[in-house]
Amino acid sequence: MAKLLALSLFLLLSSCFAIREHQPHQKQQPQQNECQLEQLNALEPDNRIESEGGIIETWNPNNRQFRCAGVALSRCTLQRNSLRRPSYSNAPQEIFIQQGSGYFGMVFPGCPETFEEPQESEQRESRRFRESEQRESRRIRESEQGESRRFRESEQGEGRRFRDSHQKVNRFREGDLIAVPTGTVFWMYNDQDTPVIAVSLIDTGSFQNQLDEMPRRFYLAGNQEQEFLQYQQQQVRGRGEQRRGREQQENEGGNIFSGFKRDFLEDALNVNRHIVEKLQGRNEDQEKGAIVKVEGGLSIMSPPERQQRHPSRQDEEDEDEEDEWRPHHQKSRRERERHNGLAETICTARLHQNMVSSSSPDIYNPQAGRIKTITSFDLPALRWLRLSAEHGTLHRNAMFVPHYNLNANSIILALNGRARLQVVNCNGNTVFDEELEAGRALIVPQNFAVAAKSVSDRFTYVSFKTNDNAAIARLAGTQSTLSGMPVDVLAATFNMDRNEARQLKNNNLFKFLVPPRESERRAAA
Amino acid sequence: MAKLLALSLFLLLSSCFAIREHQPHQKQQPQQNECQLEQLNALEPDNRIESEGGIIETWNPNNRQFRCAGVALSRCTLQRNSLRRPSYSNAPQEIFIQQGSGYFGMVFPGCPETFEEPQESEQRESRRFRESEQRESRRIRESEQGESRRFRESEQGEGRRFRDSHQKVNRFREGDLIAVPTGTVFWMYNDQDTPVIAVSLIDTGSFQNQLDEMPRRFYLAGNQEQEFLQYQQQQVRGRGEQRRGREQQENEGGNIFSGFKRDFLEDALNVNRHIVEKLQGRNEDQEKGAIVKVEGGLSIMSPPERQQRHPSRQDEEDEDEEDEWRPHHQKSRRERERHNGLAETICTARLHQNMVSSSSPDIYNPQAGRIKTITSFDLPALRWLRLSAEHGTLHRNAMFVPHYNLNANSIILALNGRARLQVVNCNGNTVFDEELEAGRALIVPQNFAVAAKSVSDRFTYVSFKTNDNAAIARLAGTQSTLSGMPVDVLAATFNMDRNEARQLKNNNLFKFLVPPRESERRAAA
Amino acid sequence: MAKLLALSLFLLLSSCFAIREHQPHQKQQPQQNECQLEQLNALEPDNRIESEGGIIETWNPNNRQFRCAGVALSRCTLQRNSLRRPSYSNAPQEIFIQQGSGYFGMVFPGCPETFEEPQESEQRESRRFRESEQRESRRIRESEQGESRRFRESEQGEGRRFRDSHQKVNRFREGDLIAVPTGTVFWMYNDQDTPVIAVSLIDTGSFQNQLDEMPRRFYLAGNQEQEFLQYQQQQVRGRGEQRRGREQQENEGGNIFSGFKRDFLEDALNVNRHIVEKLQGRNEDQEKGAIVKVEGGLSIMSPPERQQRHPSRQDEEDEDEEDEWRPHHQKSRRERERHNGLAETICTARLHQNMVSSSSPDIYNPQAGRIKTITSFDLPALRWLRLSAEHGTLHRNAMFVPHYNLNANSIILALNGRARLQVVNCNGNTVFDEELEAGRALIVPQNFAVAAKSVSDRFTYVSFKTNDNAAIARLAGTQSTLSGMPVDVLAATFNMDRNEARQLKNNNLFKFLVPPRESERRAAA
Repeated sequence: MAKLLALSLFLLLSSCFAIREHQPHQKQQPQQNECQLEQLNALEPDNRIESEGGIIETWNPNNRQFRCAGVALSRCTLQRNSLRRPSYSNAPQEIFIQQGSGYFGMVFPGCPETFEEPQESEQRESRRFRESEQRESRRIRESEQGESRRFRESEQGEGRRFRDSHQKVNRFREGDLIAVPTGTVFWMYNDQDTPVIAVSLIDTGSFQNQLDEMPRRFYLAGNQEQEFLQYQQQQVRGRGEQRRGREQQENEGGNIFSGFKRDFLEDALNVNRHIVEKLQGRNEDQEKGAIVKVEGGLSIMSPPERQQRHPSRQDEEDEDEEDEWRPHHQKSRRERERHNGLAETICTARLHQNMVSSSSPDIYNPQAGRIKTITSFDLPALRWLRLSAEHGTLHRNAMFVPHYNLNANSIILALNGRARLQVVNCNGNTVFDEELEAGRALIVPQNFAVAAKSVSDRFTYVSFKTNDNAAIARLAGTQSTLSGMPVDVLAATFNMDRNEARQLKNNNLFKFLVPPRESERRAAA
Repeated sequence: MAKLLALSLFLLLSSCFAIREHQPHQKQQPQQNECQLEQLNALEPDNRIESEGGIIETWNPNNRQFRCAGVALSRCTLQRNSLRRPSYSNAPQEIFIQQGSGYFGMVFPGCPETFEEPQESEQRESRRFRESEQRESRRIRESEQGESRRFRESEQGEGRRFRDSHQKVNRFREGDLIAVPTGTVFWMYNDQDTPVIAVSLIDTGSFQNQLDEMPRRFYLAGNQEQEFLQYQQQQVRGRGEQRRGREQQENEGGNIFSGFKRDFLEDALNVNRHIVEKLQGRNEDQEKGAIVKVEGGLSIMSPPERQQRHPSRQDEEDEDEEDEWRPHHQKSRRERERHNGLAETICTARLHQNMVSSSSPDIYNPQAGRIKTITSFDLPALRWLRLSAEHGTLHRNAMFVPHYNLNANSIILALNGRARLQVVNCNGNTVFDEELEAGRALIVPQNFAVAAKSVSDRFTYVSFKTNDNAAIARLAGTQSTLSGMPVDVLAATFNMDRNEARQLKNNNLFKFLVPPRESERRAAA
Repeated sequence: MAKLLALSLFLLLSSCFAIREHQPHQKQQPQQNECQLEQLNALEPDNRIESEGGIIETWNPNNRQFRCAGVALSRCTLQRNSLRRPSYSNAPQEIFIQQGSGYFGMVFPGCPETFEEPQESEQRESRRFRESEQRESRRIRESEQGESRRFRESEQGEGRRFRDSHQKVNRFREGDLIAVPTGTVFWMYNDQDTPVIAVSLIDTGSFQNQLDEMPRRFYLAGNQEQEFLQYQQQQVRGRGEQRRGREQQENEGGNIFSGFKRDFLEDALNVNRHIVEKLQGRNEDQEKGAIVKVEGGLSIMSPPERQQRHPSRQDEEDEDEEDEWRPHHQKSRRERERHNGLAETICTARLHQNMVSSSSPDIYNPQAGRIKTITSFDLPALRWLRLSAEHGTLHRNAMFVPHYNLNANSIILALNGRARLQVVNCNGNTVFDEELEAGRALIVPQNFAVAAKSVSDRFTYVSFKTNDNAAIARLAGTQSTLSGMPVDVLAATFNMDRNEARQLKNNNLFKFLVPPRESERRAAA
């Protein structure tokens, strides 16, 4: 009986997964001509917005290559104790943590607030971290001086502490990929000394974006311009259109609250004018920007840190990390379910996954390098986003073989070192043959062929793909496109004899990563 | 065993529903720039076409706001005894019955004709309604004088009556939302004294529309212009393009049959030239239009009317209405299945649902108002359309809090009274801050924030949404976006102290509708 | 227990199929205005590229009708012993075999190579075909002279033969419809005297195409221009844009390998410069083109030919053809599964289906003709492509009744004979009223009404539809749109009496195909 049930379940799931596969990716199509690219360029950010607590750099989304791929790219650097203020976007978003670690949160409408501050009696078991201080000494100090500032709310009521509760908060670390669904509020915070560098891809061509192709960031706070506004204006100007409506210069810059009249917000929030003004960022310095410094650091409620990591066990930890991150004073599962029918689905979904430190890469050759791919099979939340990603490391003179993406555009960002990349379009033309160096991005459109060879000791990159199950076809090596064809067809196709065709099929025994030739390895050593 | 089966079924359904959720809405993307809206306007219909039996008013679909949202809006007023002639559209359509009641029908290709006129012997149990007459006296009169006119077909054959059969006919009433799938023939008829006012939203941006974004109405009868033709021509002229092909002036206006040559139709239908000419509307007055008056009223076969309604029981009736509407002399289920494999799915699907009179609104506050939402969970047919709708009533000075649609554009049409609405875009700019009065429509693009406060005693509106499970995120109140974030993050975000942040999270205890302040309520009283 | 399982399975599948139906077709929308067609034209190919072994003709995809439908059409003629070199496209593709028979192959990344040459001991059971020779004499000759040429690889190693293995190879014949998914490498070969004529529809408007709307063919070999390149250039020039980047004249023409530098390919494939040059088609004559002649014919491994066909049994053969085509020395199912988790799904999916010779047409009337439709219910692989097709034959003076496609554009290609077609748009205008003759294509946009009457003894056509479950609504005949409406509604709609309305509903007893009138039949005889 139990077996039968298990079987039904299995069939059910596999069948439903199968359906999914039939609908690879719903992606809007670029305007006519946008993808008739005869030359690709390795692109750098062309704009940089300084904030109090960091920098936001953006690539120009009006660039033809970005328009062809239907995506926008930006990079955010967070200093220590800095908070990227909450915002949401009109399209699904993948964030790759290139460096650093910290906390992030998302707010899902209708999901319960499952992180709750403890009762006095429970407090002993819980901890609040402030990272600049020694863990133990912190708790003592908190109960001495800090208390007065942090728990001023005890002014209200009969001296009972205000117990905060909020939605899940997650810890991120270097190499994480974070999935942010369309319209979902997202914030992140750096509690460490190392600056956090986070690269964000917004898939504006997604069917989930019902606005036009422009990326948009809706901030909940501050009075800074959103980072993509300038490109909108550029584009409008470029097309010779007149700006309509009122004067733009005056009220540009502002958050989603600042456009509402004060009385509306006073009524809606039942707070006084003073608080509304802060909400609207009225008197705030525009320079403060989208990333703010938090004096003395932010105190974030989180489950007690685990004991020292055993590097050898890191991988298993990766796998059950999610379980560990459940707050230990969380409501019971049943209790949460009462709040919301979706509690066990979206509300508790895993939203990030490490791509780098894992000891189980998907492709590995000690002489050539390693590749790790995160699809919706690894991180199911990517199914909503219809995005995936790949992280790769190539050793000097190692290459990844010519291949193409069947069902996705690919946005390659070099993270470290340099590699020579070649890209070929449908006319057989070389549209790119240059070195891609750290910090530059290259867009490889769907079906265009690409190959790379590392010029540095270690070339690392991250590649964002506009399909949650992006598939590649390799043009060389075992189980490549060539080896799938009969040797006689190959011989006739390439006008060669059977022996040559056989070499084409079989000489390269590697699958994706090719180590340097013996001679090159010696030369390098 | 039965339990196991039930469980499998449950899992199966929930699993498949889960899949559905991952594919919120496939919606075409507007042209570049279309949604860079710095000012929204409350829009009125800009064209009005008078027909014999009513009026069709249309909003200009070339208006930039409509182009951004990818929809077209029109309003049809049907006088008593008037029939909106059958037509179909190139996109899914939601029709909201603002006023009145009557009958509607749709024709699904391949579905059986399950409404059948009775045999003589059965006739006693059935009734045919002609609404201008007293029910009982009607039947008597029919069998006396009316018979001669209506059953002239007994001329043919051996005096056996012709028994008509056709697909299901439905009764609609005020507050109904009707779902019309792409390409499906639809007609409606007003059998009451109150004029019927029906507002129709066509989602031209739907992936189901494989033509361009222009709304199109294909009429099966008449020789009037279809109501959106003028905008097509406007647009073509606006772009300076030349009209190709033959002269347009001559053969404009006409139905889907009038473009075929007579001999084709004679052969295809096996009828004489006289009938074909009527089919093509050749000799018909163009003024007759898309809505025709039916002399003496239309007789529509329908199950016997139920006994007097108990207003208190109305709601339960809503729920089982569908069952009651099955004609009692309908073929057995098994018999129908033999006709068509789809018989129990599309052919018998529920196609309308009341939004207004229901005593179970989704959001309710006696001092503030009520909201009722119809998604594909309420009316599964909306799953095909990928549309939903919301109906709301706000009392004087009550408001709905600032919020945004995560995954849909929203088209708000004011039905009664006036309210002040504010809309904010991604740059924090107020793009609308005016009173919206009855009869005007406002488009709120995806992710733009909106709030409203009623200026009248009762402000009512209907809001069409371009997603069958449109989700909103509230920016104020319990379980809002703000309350999902840690109080310390809020404090840092808005540069306020923890106490102020706490007020932001907790002061408003309402969820969506906020009643007027005490002082306002007193002033109003 | 078994029953329960079967039931669960059934429910599961039907439920998931039901879901599928709710998502008819994700198709990109054409640019604004593209479908405001006031006149359609029957189109011929406007370009013809001669290759060594055949011809490729293309219809102009920039034609407004093709842009409206979002598709590209081409026709390939393969001479005897000619191979269409492997290529892939940026969109799903349907290929209809108008004439001839031969072999085709596709390469699916990650699928196992399940066709393996036998060991010496097995060799007796297997055969390799070379069609110009008598079957038996061939094998003898091979082992005598041919051996030296074909098995030169025995130079390598200890005299052990190189045993080739590759992915499945399929045999196609006249009337087949072949489904080629986006990005999948496809090749075909004619081993018969009759030239193969293959018509290919590329659905560039598919959501699976993430590039712009231009069709693109990526060749794996040769140095010819891909057949749609000229239209790209035309379009770019037409818009007055400057060609960017390096000079185009020089390196135009080439395959996906020719854009890579030689050293990259040498390293990636581990072959010498000589082979790489052949791969890149460097020294090859451009005139050779996309179709090459194979001297002496190609030897393709395939299961032993079945005994002589019994025409009467042909249909059953159609059904189990797939099983028979499994190579008998194929690895066991379990063995294959070990290679790849997808082995039993994509890797072994049926990819073609005959539309013509089948003795079970879907619509059949001996006096009027026959229609066969292939949807994803017939050929499940079409679910990935979101395409379907229809094949029809009309006798002289027979017609198919006025009807429209609810959810698809339709591309009708006349194969034999001539018929008069009429098409009507939403304004009731005749947009086409001409004879469509063999070799010409007519695009009938979604919801436009169409009817046809054969002028020849046999008019045959194939119609490609941009939806895997394209549905039509008939405007005449039993169970048509008219007969779904109450007779009184019809009477009021068309301003006729009940008797006339009844004739409209009932006079034509045919469903789709209408035989010629008695008088016409006599005249023809």
